[in-house]
Amino acid sequence: MERTINRELPAQIGKTVTIAGWVDVRRDHGKLIFLDVRDRSGIVQCVVTPRASEAMEIAKELRPQFTVAIVGELKERPENMRGAGPFGGIELSVQSVVILSRAQELPFDMSAELNLDTHLDYLPLTLRTARSRDIFTMQETILEGFRSSMRKQDFTEFTAPAIVGEDAEGGAAAFRVSYHHDTSAFLATSPQFYKQIMVGPFERAFTVAKIFRAEKHSTTRHLSEATSLDFEMGFIESHREPMAVLSRCVSDIVSLATERHPDMFERFDLPPPVIGDEIPTLTLREAQKILGVTEAPDLDPAGERSICEWAKKERASDFVFITAFPTKARAFYTYEDPHEAPYSRGFDLLFRGLEINSGSQRMHDYDALIGRMHERGLDPQKFSFYLQAFKYGLPPHGGSATGLERMTARMLGIANVKEATAFPRDLNRIDIRLSE
Amino acid sequence: MERTINRELPAQIGKTVTIAGWVDVRRDHGKLIFLDVRDRSGIVQCVVTPRASEAMEIAKELRPQFTVAIVGELKERPENMRGAGPFGGIELSVQSVVILSRAQELPFDMSAELNLDTHLDYLPLTLRTARSRDIFTMQETILEGFRSSMRKQDFTEFTAPAIVGEDAEGGAAAFRVSYHHDTSAFLATSPQFYKQIMVGPFERAFTVAKIFRAEKHSTTRHLSEATSLDFEMGFIESHREPMAVLSRCVSDIVSLATERHPDMFERFDLPPPVIGDEIPTLTLREAQKILGVTEAPDLDPAGERSICEWAKKERASDFVFITAFPTKARAFYTYEDPHEAPYSRGFDLLFRGLEINSGSQRMHDYDALIGRMHERGLDPQKFSFYLQAFKYGLPPHGGSATGLERMTARMLGIANVKEATAFPRDLNRIDIRLSE
Repeated sequence: MERTINRELPAQIGKTVTIAGWVDVRRDHGKLIFLDVRDRSGIVQCVVTPRASEAMEIAKELRPQFTVAIVGELKERPENMRGAGPFGGIELSVQSVVILSRAQELPFDMSAELNLDTHLDYLPLTLRTARSRDIFTMQETILEGFRSSMRKQDFTEFTAPAIVGEDAEGGAAAFRVSYHHDTSAFLATSPQFYKQIMVGPFERAFTVAKIFRAEKHSTTRHLSEATSLDFEMGFIESHREPMAVLSRCVSDIVSLATERHPDMFERFDLPPPVIGDEIPTLTLREAQKILGVTEAPDLDPAGERSICEWAKKERASDFVFITAFPTKARAFYTYEDPHEAPYSRGFDLLFRGLEINSGSQRMHDYDALIGRMHERGLDPQKFSFYLQAFKYGLPPHGGSATGLERMTARMLGIANVKEATAFPRDLNRIDIRLSE
Repeated sequence: MERTINRELPAQIGKTVTIAGWVDVRRDHGKLIFLDVRDRSGIVQCVVTPRASEAMEIAKELRPQFTVAIVGELKERPENMRGAGPFGGIELSVQSVVILSRAQELPFDMSAELNLDTHLDYLPLTLRTARSRDIFTMQETILEGFRSSMRKQDFTEFTAPAIVGEDAEGGAAAFRVSYHHDTSAFLATSPQFYKQIMVGPFERAFTVAKIFRAEKHSTTRHLSEATSLDFEMGFIESHREPMAVLSRCVSDIVSLATERHPDMFERFDLPPPVIGDEIPTLTLREAQKILGVTEAPDLDPAGERSICEWAKKERASDFVFITAFPTKARAFYTYEDPHEAPYSRGFDLLFRGLEINSGSQRMHDYDALIGRMHERGLDPQKFSFYLQAFKYGLPPHGGSATGLERMTARMLGIANVKEATAFPRDLNRIDIRLSE
C-alpha cells in the first residue's frame, strides 16, 4: 500500500493507511503500546492493542529511533484524549508493523536538555531532536528569505570560490591548503574580492558562501567555518544604499520567519524580532556616549549587548546600526570620504546583543586603492587579479556580509552559535574532538 | 536627480532622466558620439550632439568600461533607426555626463571571441561580456530551479561542511588543510555523509555544497573546486524514487530556463533541452549492447556521448539514465540487493553527452555497512561519527548529486566546464596561473 505522509492523515479518518517514520517515543501500558511516529511532516500517535497480536510482539521490541512502516486504521481521538500538535486529534489503530531499521539503545534521554558537548558529540542523533529540527528549519527560512529578498531587489546570485591564492583581508588568520604543484593556497576568509568583481558584470550580486577563519577563538560567537550571506551593489552615493538594501532584506527575513514559524517562537519562549520601518542608526561616538564609555575603535561584546538593550528600550527595535568607525580599524578596502576622515563609511548591524553583519562603501578608484594597500603594508602585486576589476572601471559600490549562524542563533535566542550550526568546526572539533 | 534603471526607460519617453552604467561601446562619428551604456538591466544607446558641448568634451575622453552617470532626454528612435534588443526603440539624447570611474585601455577587443586562457586570465574584465553574463545568469536560474523544485518536493535545505576530518569516499584524492592543533584536515570531496545524516532529522534534505577534488585532471570536464546540487531522501523502496525526484527536478530546471531565457538559447544557437514525461533509462549492459562495446564497469566519455546521441535519436531525449553498474565500481555505501548482485542500485544521469549526476540507493543497515567497509579496506573507527546515524536507525534511503558547472555547460552547449565556472580552480590556476 502506498505510504501516506503524516500531514495527510487528518483527511483519511476511517481509512486504512500505511505510514512510515521513526519511533519517537514508545509507551508500554502492558495491554496497550503507544508509539509516537515521526516523519518529515510531524508526529502521529499509534496504538497497538492485543487484537493485533503480531504487531504487539513487534511493538514490544521497538525502541526510540527504530524506523518502521505501519499499517493501521485512522481514528479520531475522543475529545478528552486529544494530544498537542497538529495531529493531536487523530490516532492510528495499528494492524501491522514492519521494522525497516533498528537502533541501538540511546546513550541518553533525547527529551532531556542536553549539554552542548553531548549534543555535538552525538550530532547524527541529536540533530533529530525537536529543538534541533526547529533550529535548522529556521535556518532554512533565513536562507530562503535572504535569497528571495536579494532577487526582489534585483541582485544576481553567483558562487564564490573557497580556495584562494591570497587571503582577502590580507592578514586575517587563514587556513592553509596544500594545492597542486606543491603550492600553498588558503581557504577564503570572505567572498569580498569576488563579489566586488561581480559588480562588474551584474552591478548587484549576492552569494551564500562558506568562510573560514583560523583564529584560535574559543567563544560562543566564533566558528572556524561559517556561512556568509553576502551582497555587493554598484552606483551608490554612500553606505546608506547598502544599509537600505540590508534593512529591507532583514525585514523580509523576519517577516517570513514570523509568518511561517509562530509555533517555533512560542517553543523557544521568545517573541519574533521587532523591526520597524527604519532600523535605528548611531555613529560609534553616539553609541559610546550613550554607554558612557571612552572612545575606542569598536564596541566590545558587552557594549554590543548594552547598546542593543538601549535600542530595544528607547527605539523599540531588536536591530541597531552602528556607523562611522575609524578607518584604520576597518578592512583596507573601506571607503573614507575626505570630509569625514578619520572615520569611514562602514557599518555594523547588531541584533539582540550581537553583531551579525558588517559592511561598508568600498574604495573604487584604482590608484587610491593601490595607495591604501601601500599604507597597510600590502603588496599590490599579490592582488593583481582583484585589481583588474578596478583597472577596468568599477563604479562606487558597497555591500555587506551577514553571518547565517549568528542570525539563526539570535532569531531563536540560542546562547552559542555552535548550536545554530549543523556541523560546527571549531578550535577543538571537526565532527569528533580533535585531541583530548 | 534619482537614477532610472535602463529597463524602466521605455516608459519615460519625452522625460529627462539620469542613468548610470558602464560604457559598453563608444562610436565616434565626429559630430555625433554614440554611447552604449550597460547597467544591470540592459544596454541603452545614448547620443551626444555638439549642442551639449561640455558633454561632448567628456564623451571624447570616454573608453569602454568607464562608468558614467548621464542626464538626458529620452526619445523614441525613428522606425528605420531602431536597434536590436529590448531597448532598441529608444535613445537618450545626452545633456550631461559625469565620469564615476575610469578604465585603462582594454588589453583586447571585448566583442571578439576570446580563447579560454585569455578569458580566464582576465576574468574581472571578461565576466562582463554578454556571453559570460548569459552563462552566469543561466547558472543562477539552475540554482533557483533546483532549490525551488526541492522545496516543492518537501526537502529541507541545510549547509554541509567543507572542512572534514576524513575523506567521504575513503580514497578519492582530497586536498589537505592545516587545521588547529597541528592536525590535518581535508576538503570535502562530497557532502555525502552529511546529507545521509540529515535524513535523520528531515527525512528529505538537500544542500548546495562546494566539493573539492585533488586529482590531477586536466580535461574539459574536471575542476578542483565545484558546486554540487545534492539531495537525499528516506523511506524508499529502491533507487527508482530518487531517480523520480531527480527527473522532476531536472524537468523543473529545464522549464524555468526555457521560460525565462528563450533569447539566451537563441544567442547560443542551441534549442532548449528536450525532456519528456519520463527520462529513458538503460542498464549499463543495455547501453553497452547498443554501443556494441564489451562489458566494462562504466562508460567512457566517448561512450557517454554516443549513448546520448542514441537517446536523442531514438527516444527524442537530451537526458538518459544509466543504471545497474557493478557494485565494485561504485562508492562503498552503494546498496546492492542480493537478488541483483553483482550489480548495485546506482544510477548516472547523462545530459547532451556528459554525465552530470550520479546517485544511488545507499546501504542503511549498520552491520552490513561495517561489513562493506571492511571489504573495501576502510577502517570503521575513522567513520565513527558518520556511523552513528546508522547505529541509531536510518531507513532505506538514497539520493544523488548534480554538478552545477557541468549542467550549466551542457545547457548552453559550452565545450569546457571552466567557462561555466565564475572563478575556476584547476591544476594550473587559482585566479592567476600557478606556475609558468
